[in-house]
Amino acid sequence: MIYEGYYIFTPGPVKMSKEILEIGAKQTPYFRNSEFSDVTLYCENSLLKMLNAPKGSKVIFLTASGTAGMESVVMNLLDNDDNALVVNGGGFGARFVDICDLHGIDHFNFKVKNTNLSDIEKLAPKQKFSSLIVNAHETSIGHLYDLEAIGKYCKKNSLLYIVDAISMFVTDSLNMQKDAVDAVIISSQKALALPPGLTMVVLSPKALKKVKDVKNLYFNFKDYLRNGERGQTPYTPAVTIMLQLEARLKQIEREGGVEKSIEKAQKLAEYFRQKIKTLPLKAYTPFMPNAMTTLTPTDGKSAFKIVEDLEKNYKIMVCPNGGELKDTIFRVSHMGDMDEDYVDILVDALFDYYENN
Amino acid sequence: MIYEGYYIFTPGPVKMSKEILEIGAKQTPYFRNSEFSDVTLYCENSLLKMLNAPKGSKVIFLTASGTAGMESVVMNLLDNDDNALVVNGGGFGARFVDICDLHGIDHFNFKVKNTNLSDIEKLAPKQKFSSLIVNAHETSIGHLYDLEAIGKYCKKNSLLYIVDAISMFVTDSLNMQKDAVDAVIISSQKALALPPGLTMVVLSPKALKKVKDVKNLYFNFKDYLRNGERGQTPYTPAVTIMLQLEARLKQIEREGGVEKSIEKAQKLAEYFRQKIKTLPLKAYTPFMPNAMTTLTPTDGKSAFKIVEDLEKNYKIMVCPNGGELKDTIFRVSHMGDMDEDYVDILVDALFDYYENN
Repeated sequence: MIYEGYYIFTPGPVKMSKEILEIGAKQTPYFRNSEFSDVTLYCENSLLKMLNAPKGSKVIFLTASGTAGMESVVMNLLDNDDNALVVNGGGFGARFVDICDLHGIDHFNFKVKNTNLSDIEKLAPKQKFSSLIVNAHETSIGHLYDLEAIGKYCKKNSLLYIVDAISMFVTDSLNMQKDAVDAVIISSQKALALPPGLTMVVLSPKALKKVKDVKNLYFNFKDYLRNGERGQTPYTPAVTIMLQLEARLKQIEREGGVEKSIEKAQKLAEYFRQKIKTLPLKAYTPFMPNAMTTLTPTDGKSAFKIVEDLEKNYKIMVCPNGGELKDTIFRVSHMGDMDEDYVDILVDALFDYYENN
Repeated sequence: MIYEGYYIFTPGPVKMSKEILEIGAKQTPYFRNSEFSDVTLYCENSLLKMLNAPKGSKVIFLTASGTAGMESVVMNLLDNDDNALVVNGGGFGARFVDICDLHGIDHFNFKVKNTNLSDIEKLAPKQKFSSLIVNAHETSIGHLYDLEAIGKYCKKNSLLYIVDAISMFVTDSLNMQKDAVDAVIISSQKALALPPGLTMVVLSPKALKKVKDVKNLYFNFKDYLRNGERGQTPYTPAVTIMLQLEARLKQIEREGGVEKSIEKAQKLAEYFRQKIKTLPLKAYTPFMPNAMTTLTPTDGKSAFKIVEDLEKNYKIMVCPNGGELKDTIFRVSHMGDMDEDYVDILVDALFDYYENN
């Protein structure tokens, strides 16, 4: 199989634990029964607890990748009466802008740079909005927004607060009640460290009230909510990944809960950043999440070339960027089943690389 | 894990081979590179070959379940100028009717019963249509349509011919060129015997010409076709299932090709039907596919009770029906990694069951 035996530092897919992989090797069971409903309901409750979701919140399980979560949230929660403030600080923010465009949702393309929006009160356009959409961690550049400050702004202005948490859930803090978040999008292949193909949408009671009738079958939240009452989905779920999700959530709980998981990622990120301090690489943004470190070569080297060389000479996969940032940055994930020894493999490779190049 | 060690005779998920399961236990590799493109392109070519697709046909890989394939085909191929003849002989036919309704596509709800449409010339309403949609195998009742006769009718009337082949591909014959099929929908968790979460849409050159601009991001075929040129997808693919698909297609080729796979399913289905001939069970439809046998108790027993007892007392999963057919039929799949010895486990259980009940 391709890339077997490689070290994985890409921000999805990420390194999975042995326990999760073993479930991938089991027969997929039949799922239209109460045994599988229990799995789904367990996952729902565990996710709601980890997010400190308000009472009455619900989870929708989509067999799809993250973009489907982003699009379906816009389709189901917003309509012609809405006006969304869309934070656009990179490729994924731009995708939300495209989605609003496509579905005819009034929106403001809120282009931001060099800020984590702790100053949103000052920066936000002075007009009336009905909702705010943000990619908590703009993965294209590794930039984390200040969810608390944005939450305060949303609360003050009574905005529906939609957070794409795809690449920060369980590595960076997200608290629906504290920060007044109404909708959260999560995917399987980031810090949940499962195979790609499962996306979850979490809706607060306020968001649930907004769910409308959509002209779409596969993304009809009302159908999912109705079936979800008994732990089922309207269409075949990603059964194997659901079983892996159940095991993964239990794993997180067993290891001390989501706070411990965040703390672990934070320590690993700090460890890595400290270790490579003397190399000619600098952080691309001061607002890095625990999930990932984005680095820019300061000695004129091409970031893309570094990515290629790490792959070819050290069997290490870090993540390149496309487009105009191709030679400027590369990304190192701290998500998944990692420890300091695993991080050292990359650290050692980088030092060796700089000694010889 | 739930239902470990059970015998699986459900029409999805189905029993997977050891080779496929082992890939499920491997780390998901990074996929935005030529190595993964090669996997995708191999899968595309192999699928096109197995379908005897016309030159220039393309495959779209959706991270989604089968319904997304059904809906996206209607969204991308049909518009206000179309009038679709939708074959509705059960739950999945009805779903296509719903999809056309929802997306405002003119259609005729062609309700059929007790026919495989070999007589479509006679039965079809005498009006002008632009396309025909059929679930080749109406899985809700185990009824196979005559794709050749329908194909002749489509050809004669210049209809775009859309075939949902989800639960008959590689167990029952499907030949795009011979039967003038323009679009085919396939899913991973049926006879391809992979975990659920991957759906493929195959488009002939005639169908490709019909692909329009849709007001949807996740189901925009043009994006998939553009990215597909280099073996990529616009959004994170179901990487692990794609790698399993590659292995599975190679497995089918190694074992003699799709014809051999169909022949194997046919033999198994006949073997099972012959073996249980003396039991008080009769075929629900004379038009059974190789993929599945649908049985009705003739001694007044409840079909649902039989399903429950097989599960509880023999660790065997066959498939119940919901709704008004709940007590009338149950379904036995012949898809997946099975042989006569495996079928015997169910046969023996059924005989034992009838001796004691």
